[in-house]
Amino acid sequence: MPSQTVAQQRLLIKGGKVVNDDHSVVADVYVEDGVVRRVGTNLCPEPPSGLLVLDATNKLVIPGGIDTHTHMQFPFMGSRSKDDFYTGTKAAIAGGTTMIIDFAIPQKGCSLIEAFDTWKSWADPKVCCDYALHVGVTWWSNKVKEEMKSLVQSKGVNSFKMFMAYKDLYMVNDEVLYEAFSQCKELGAIAQVHAENGELIAQGAKKMLAMGITGPEGHELCRPEEVEAEATQRAITIANVINCPLFVVHVMSKSAARVITNARREGKVVYGEPIAASLGTDGTNYWNKDWQHAAGHVMGPPLRPDPSTPDFLMNLLANDDLSVTGTDNCTFDTCQKALGKDDFTKIPNGVNGVEDRMSVIWEKGVYSGKMDENRFVAVTSTNAAKIFNLYPKKGRIAVGSDADIVIWDPKATRTISAETHHQANNFNIFEGMVCHGVPVATISRGKVVYEGGTFNVTAGEGRYVSRPPFPPYVYKRVRQRDQVCQPVPVKRAPYTDVVSATPITPQ
Amino acid sequence: MPSQTVAQQRLLIKGGKVVNDDHSVVADVYVEDGVVRRVGTNLCPEPPSGLLVLDATNKLVIPGGIDTHTHMQFPFMGSRSKDDFYTGTKAAIAGGTTMIIDFAIPQKGCSLIEAFDTWKSWADPKVCCDYALHVGVTWWSNKVKEEMKSLVQSKGVNSFKMFMAYKDLYMVNDEVLYEAFSQCKELGAIAQVHAENGELIAQGAKKMLAMGITGPEGHELCRPEEVEAEATQRAITIANVINCPLFVVHVMSKSAARVITNARREGKVVYGEPIAASLGTDGTNYWNKDWQHAAGHVMGPPLRPDPSTPDFLMNLLANDDLSVTGTDNCTFDTCQKALGKDDFTKIPNGVNGVEDRMSVIWEKGVYSGKMDENRFVAVTSTNAAKIFNLYPKKGRIAVGSDADIVIWDPKATRTISAETHHQANNFNIFEGMVCHGVPVATISRGKVVYEGGTFNVTAGEGRYVSRPPFPPYVYKRVRQRDQVCQPVPVKRAPYTDVVSATPITPQ
Amino acid sequence: MPSQTVAQQRLLIKGGKVVNDDHSVVADVYVEDGVVRRVGTNLCPEPPSGLLVLDATNKLVIPGGIDTHTHMQFPFMGSRSKDDFYTGTKAAIAGGTTMIIDFAIPQKGCSLIEAFDTWKSWADPKVCCDYALHVGVTWWSNKVKEEMKSLVQSKGVNSFKMFMAYKDLYMVNDEVLYEAFSQCKELGAIAQVHAENGELIAQGAKKMLAMGITGPEGHELCRPEEVEAEATQRAITIANVINCPLFVVHVMSKSAARVITNARREGKVVYGEPIAASLGTDGTNYWNKDWQHAAGHVMGPPLRPDPSTPDFLMNLLANDDLSVTGTDNCTFDTCQKALGKDDFTKIPNGVNGVEDRMSVIWEKGVYSGKMDENRFVAVTSTNAAKIFNLYPKKGRIAVGSDADIVIWDPKATRTISAETHHQANNFNIFEGMVCHGVPVATISRGKVVYEGGTFNVTAGEGRYVSRPPFPPYVYKRVRQRDQVCQPVPVKRAPYTDVVSATPITPQ
Amino acid sequence: MPSQTVAQQRLLIKGGKVVNDDHSVVADVYVEDGVVRRVGTNLCPEPPSGLLVLDATNKLVIPGGIDTHTHMQFPFMGSRSKDDFYTGTKAAIAGGTTMIIDFAIPQKGCSLIEAFDTWKSWADPKVCCDYALHVGVTWWSNKVKEEMKSLVQSKGVNSFKMFMAYKDLYMVNDEVLYEAFSQCKELGAIAQVHAENGELIAQGAKKMLAMGITGPEGHELCRPEEVEAEATQRAITIANVINCPLFVVHVMSKSAARVITNARREGKVVYGEPIAASLGTDGTNYWNKDWQHAAGHVMGPPLRPDPSTPDFLMNLLANDDLSVTGTDNCTFDTCQKALGKDDFTKIPNGVNGVEDRMSVIWEKGVYSGKMDENRFVAVTSTNAAKIFNLYPKKGRIAVGSDADIVIWDPKATRTISAETHHQANNFNIFEGMVCHGVPVATISRGKVVYEGGTFNVTAGEGRYVSRPPFPPYVYKRVRQRDQVCQPVPVKRAPYTDVVSATPITPQ
Repeated sequence: MPSQTVAQQRLLIKGGKVVNDDHSVVADVYVEDGVVRRVGTNLCPEPPSGLLVLDATNKLVIPGGIDTHTHMQFPFMGSRSKDDFYTGTKAAIAGGTTMIIDFAIPQKGCSLIEAFDTWKSWADPKVCCDYALHVGVTWWSNKVKEEMKSLVQSKGVNSFKMFMAYKDLYMVNDEVLYEAFSQCKELGAIAQVHAENGELIAQGAKKMLAMGITGPEGHELCRPEEVEAEATQRAITIANVINCPLFVVHVMSKSAARVITNARREGKVVYGEPIAASLGTDGTNYWNKDWQHAAGHVMGPPLRPDPSTPDFLMNLLANDDLSVTGTDNCTFDTCQKALGKDDFTKIPNGVNGVEDRMSVIWEKGVYSGKMDENRFVAVTSTNAAKIFNLYPKKGRIAVGSDADIVIWDPKATRTISAETHHQANNFNIFEGMVCHGVPVATISRGKVVYEGGTFNVTAGEGRYVSRPPFPPYVYKRVRQRDQVCQPVPVKRAPYTDVVSATPITPQ
Repeated sequence: MPSQTVAQQRLLIKGGKVVNDDHSVVADVYVEDGVVRRVGTNLCPEPPSGLLVLDATNKLVIPGGIDTHTHMQFPFMGSRSKDDFYTGTKAAIAGGTTMIIDFAIPQKGCSLIEAFDTWKSWADPKVCCDYALHVGVTWWSNKVKEEMKSLVQSKGVNSFKMFMAYKDLYMVNDEVLYEAFSQCKELGAIAQVHAENGELIAQGAKKMLAMGITGPEGHELCRPEEVEAEATQRAITIANVINCPLFVVHVMSKSAARVITNARREGKVVYGEPIAASLGTDGTNYWNKDWQHAAGHVMGPPLRPDPSTPDFLMNLLANDDLSVTGTDNCTFDTCQKALGKDDFTKIPNGVNGVEDRMSVIWEKGVYSGKMDENRFVAVTSTNAAKIFNLYPKKGRIAVGSDADIVIWDPKATRTISAETHHQANNFNIFEGMVCHGVPVATISRGKVVYEGGTFNVTAGEGRYVSRPPFPPYVYKRVRQRDQVCQPVPVKRAPYTDVVSATPITPQ
Repeated sequence: MPSQTVAQQRLLIKGGKVVNDDHSVVADVYVEDGVVRRVGTNLCPEPPSGLLVLDATNKLVIPGGIDTHTHMQFPFMGSRSKDDFYTGTKAAIAGGTTMIIDFAIPQKGCSLIEAFDTWKSWADPKVCCDYALHVGVTWWSNKVKEEMKSLVQSKGVNSFKMFMAYKDLYMVNDEVLYEAFSQCKELGAIAQVHAENGELIAQGAKKMLAMGITGPEGHELCRPEEVEAEATQRAITIANVINCPLFVVHVMSKSAARVITNARREGKVVYGEPIAASLGTDGTNYWNKDWQHAAGHVMGPPLRPDPSTPDFLMNLLANDDLSVTGTDNCTFDTCQKALGKDDFTKIPNGVNGVEDRMSVIWEKGVYSGKMDENRFVAVTSTNAAKIFNLYPKKGRIAVGSDADIVIWDPKATRTISAETHHQANNFNIFEGMVCHGVPVATISRGKVVYEGGTFNVTAGEGRYVSRPPFPPYVYKRVRQRDQVCQPVPVKRAPYTDVVSATPITPQ
Repeated sequence: MPSQTVAQQRLLIKGGKVVNDDHSVVADVYVEDGVVRRVGTNLCPEPPSGLLVLDATNKLVIPGGIDTHTHMQFPFMGSRSKDDFYTGTKAAIAGGTTMIIDFAIPQKGCSLIEAFDTWKSWADPKVCCDYALHVGVTWWSNKVKEEMKSLVQSKGVNSFKMFMAYKDLYMVNDEVLYEAFSQCKELGAIAQVHAENGELIAQGAKKMLAMGITGPEGHELCRPEEVEAEATQRAITIANVINCPLFVVHVMSKSAARVITNARREGKVVYGEPIAASLGTDGTNYWNKDWQHAAGHVMGPPLRPDPSTPDFLMNLLANDDLSVTGTDNCTFDTCQKALGKDDFTKIPNGVNGVEDRMSVIWEKGVYSGKMDENRFVAVTSTNAAKIFNLYPKKGRIAVGSDADIVIWDPKATRTISAETHHQANNFNIFEGMVCHGVPVATISRGKVVYEGGTFNVTAGEGRYVSRPPFPPYVYKRVRQRDQVCQPVPVKRAPYTDVVSATPITPQ
């Protein structure tokens, strides 16, 4: 469709309310070659031919969403997540998200670079929007350390994820956390953690099975929220002694969120990422009488049975105690989930979210009055761009920014359903939720890829986005502290006036 | 100086790092007629004659500071604060502040509009930079209610301050707070409180004097921080049941700050304003053996003896638990302070700050590594502009903004001293503090009013700035909550099947 | 029944587990003339004739419960509470409570002593177990101050209750609180508060009615828990500056309980009293579709809609963050409640509890594993005796103690119901609750007044118990602090070297 | 001295105020054969010959102190602690402590029973007062598990300590903690932890040395309080999922104490043990210019530089957020400390306390007004007896209790000094502290072993005290929870209607 491509090179969005994280203003947005060129009132009053004009009157014009946490076509727990980089990113743009950050996760003992290359080879031919890759550190060696350096310096990676759970699979101990965090700090990368105590999960799972609890409720019972809070506290403590910035992925519980919040108040550089699932539903579903329904909600860390959790997390997100939102989108259909029908430990962990995140947060956050439209933009896009050093190319509608833009109708509503969603999965954890806030059109790098329910996108059109190290938003404080907050030795006269005891040998 | 005025109409700031609250970028800034016209690289490579060029290489170019809390030439406690609107605003621009918000405070029973007019008549002929006026509500009547409306609708006032302290002078009780907050809410204004329990202060002062404690230490002893925390909690509770946004002026203590922080986490719309004094020094000074020194620190609420207070408040400010910074600048010289030489209750309350606020926050906040330069801009300027509905005219360097700009040298240092400061007072609570971060030049509405230690300003050059009601930053959430969070009656069948008891009359 | 009385003079309780607050031991208890004479194993192996022997094998032998908070035959809100001192105390002993402390509450302007005498004249001829009276301070004058002194010195009163709610009826302002607390401190009494902000309740009630919310749910909506927490914080602050011990009656909410807990951690002498209602049910009942049911739960402060409240309070009670338990027993039958059928503000406030308190706490506290039997004794009896200076005459089974004893079957269960309870009311807020823990026999001053469902008691058999001032449990710390924690003036050279400013007169 | 021994068999303490944890009463105490036989007024008005009478008029008669944490003659860090079981227990009785609980700590891989026997063989011939032994679990195997059982069932041990610090020496990982806690729970023992993250200490120590920080200040810098708080949180989390009671030894910091306090509020069965050192001094000493002074304070976990720590801990101790007090008495003299004169990691860790604990707590706790004399008894003796199942033989003055009694003069003062103390060490961390509260006489099992500065005791007179498992104070709640709080499976129809996915093999 060459004509289309040409037509897309220039685009005018007229009459909308342009919403950035700091304020909103009614203005036109003019785009050329995938980049915003002008923002102002009454641009191009007489549009020339060849200029595509979108009318955004009474609509919001917002930066495209950035989903900081997805697992497309992820080989995991004996299966592979259903949404691949094609269906996953297509669903994303249908929901108003124009960039995802996925994870390349090597097996223990395997090369990080190879994992990165593998994931990139999966993604490049399929993605419908921009993407980047975090890389997992699942073991430690000098080679791992070197590969981290290469990834940062040559591959545009500025974030590494360590697992404190999944014993014997991905879990690393405190010593590895210390090493990996230290290397992140050295390289100007962000350390990420899956924060759950894997030892306790392993023990808890054994115990539940021994008690005859084999259903999905066992999944939560064997890893209650204190298991998450403990690991969160531990990761923060380790990161802080290194002065390494920390990003806690998928914050699922009130107690883990409190740990993060308290650390931030004390000045620690830590970011918390609640996800669509933890903001939009809860763990009472694990006690649902319908196994399929219950299993459909299984993810790690689990959703929490305390039904006040989503509101609590949303309040913290509104208040910048939590910073960004992802989804941990990692879909398995019912057939895959059934691997664990007799043993909850075998249910593949993962839920949807990449398509519905924006709507869920609008509904539960903005429509409810917890946050305004500007904070919505901050938590769905801008903060992610700042933390991962994509700002202001991503995360803002301003002259010079990438034209990743969504036209958002704050009054319209839609009902979420697996029947109508664009994800590959046959289950949706938000089934039946009526959401105010609907993406009318999605623009990726200046091209209208989705409008009014119709896609105009080809697999592979999205691009891999390199992320430079030392994001200023994160690292300015960190570096300054390194300079001014170092302890100095006490000056003392040499201590010479006693004879030392002779060391003894312990019994 | 007509040539000067003409010359100032166009201004180019070259080569600096332009620092806004969201990010920093090396760029030139071009100003015409007091407004920023362009921000970009390599503007006007060959400047025409008549264009004033300031070289900002290796310097920061930041939005001028906004001091949200001053009391110039304030008639108070039997005296009048030493800095008037001339010396006060001159000191402000020397320190990098280009706008102050002062308070018009009527006596009980007196007209709010007359107070506003009086203060404005004092300020207009004297101010060297832009200013606005909060108005005090010190009593209640229908007339007061009507005057609040007039002030909002005709005088550009969008904030009213109520005192919970100063019994018999300014203090109002919970009923008046409820009425005043309700009217603020109705009008789209921000309710401000001086949060201390005035009854406890009155009782405490009597008690201290009875115990023979007449010196400045008695000032703190009679109003310890729990007295501040209590009132803060009460004001927040009252405001919240009304869904009225609240701004707590001069947050002085850890416990009051914690109250605010906790309320924000629960989603309450409340802002806390620490001040230069509470961020830069502490209440151990009241125990200083030199009466003059101790009395020089007397202000209400007092500085706190816990020496970890400033760091604690700065961490919260860095983390957006606290939002903006003022000074409560209300200077009295030693001679005035001596009114209370035999009785601390007679020491006029007030300290300096308007000149040194920016440097103190840079030193204790940025140089220390607690916040970065962008957060510095947020807490010294941007957030104030947002809350009081001046944004983005004030608080941001962007096309269309007022050219209130400071060129800031982050490497240079200066030593604060009453000997060298520009305030009218002969005492400085930050005496001897060495601060990194020095304002090299200050530009007010496009005119270089201060540069390299030299003023170029005339009394009355500043302007009164009207502030429209319903600041979106504050009121978007508030209004949405009014729409979606209202309780509804339970539907019940009428209750008719019993005969009611006959009421009795109490004994 | 003289034979009965004689027979009761000597009593042996055999083979039970004697449970005090510090530990439990299997032992016999021998009672003579209403007093415990011996505790030990194998007492009186061959009981003489005339000795009544109760077999307590496999049962617990516990100190009789002390209900710290009742309102029998209270003239209130246009009605009079249904249970008088006869039915109320009869119900008490049926439930294992052997002492109540009621409240004598004068109208504003009326004599405290007259109120005390009135209440005593109501109680003396009716009570079936021992009782005492707290006295309300509902206004202030020198006469009130003097009467407090008389009550303490001549009438055996050591606690006074001040209302922060019930505007225009009982509510006092901060100034009166300060005066009343000061006088309590002076006299060695305990200050009690009903902690709710009465101004906010009054405003909230108006608002709810204006919104068309007239049903019982409006009762909670107009006084949400922050209204309780605020007043609790304020009362603690005022008491603390006076160093006066404070007792917060009817702690109903998590937030108020947190305020108390935090104060205690800081060393403040404050005690919190949750009640059977707040420990055993919750405020979701106000939304019940059945008006009669909803209204039956109306009390002030209200029960809280957060269903996790009872467990939260019970955990704090188990942990000594909260100290004792009362009931606020103040029953109104449906007919009386119907006074407010069209306006929730007219529903007489009050619920039952005096009979069921012990069972509810056993079920929710001990059976649930939150506390053990010893802590149960502490919170139902011992701590009340310590705080109100009745210990160890009351609150302990030991040689010399009053023989107020309950034989408790921890394995038996009973179902609470208005059908079967002994209170005068036709409604029970614990309707249908199955409780482990049943009082098998109740002994008051050595007489078996209730056994196996049968009463053996005459109106007026109970006695008024005088409570001396300065309870050591409460006042030892208070007095020591008065001696060692007083501030001292800083020693300074006289300040003479400046001429004071001439005071000005404010505008 | 046979005459003495005979004379000691009967003892009358006359006219003192007998202070137990629940209340105080003026009474005589009559002792025979080492056991309290009577407590009452006016016992033996005419004492027969052969009855030793001690006049305690105007003195307090308190249960002898129990020090829950000592390390006498401990082979550690290349040295052996200076105080052996003779000098250590002699110092104890001089200070009013009549029982210590020491630790038998096997090397990794070594037998727990052998360690127990070794320590017992050291103690038995030397102890001057009663003692018991906790046993360390420093590694894991089936043999260890079996030996724990034997120790509980045959050796009178009911507490085991696990180290989360001392990497490669004593440290165990989460898996071993889980196993050891599980076995404790099974056996009815109390799990104890040294809560510091050993990995972070090891890394921190390397870092400090690399930075050239070799002095004692490095000791604290490499293990700041968050390292303690983290491990405390982790241990509590692990213990709680097992429902195993936990005892955190040597609580040194505000943040660790807060973790414990919060856990207790949530109902977790956890006890915190601050020690004389953390209650009486602070970590600013590590920055002392005198190396000997600084090194003299080195212990693990370190004292904290925040000078408000001791008061904070004392408030929590007063409020039962913390439960008991030990000392971690493990003295090294200057000569021994000098092993680390060039490298703080080689300074043997340990300080004194066994002699001064009672006085320090009296001074900082009781004299200061933070707690009363009854709470003093609770935290120095009674609670320890309850937790370790010695109550009411120990920890109470009552008929049938061991006559471990101290006559305490609350008005007298003494000044602590290494010059005058009875410990073997030449340094005292409380040097110069003036303490109110002096032990006038100490009675161990009915014998006056110390009076007016004179000892009357022979090495080996003390006895090993067996402690039975399942202390009711600790385990009643634990066992009840095991019965009523177990999760049950959700009942669901079998899930049969889908074909499971075929598992894949990960890349």
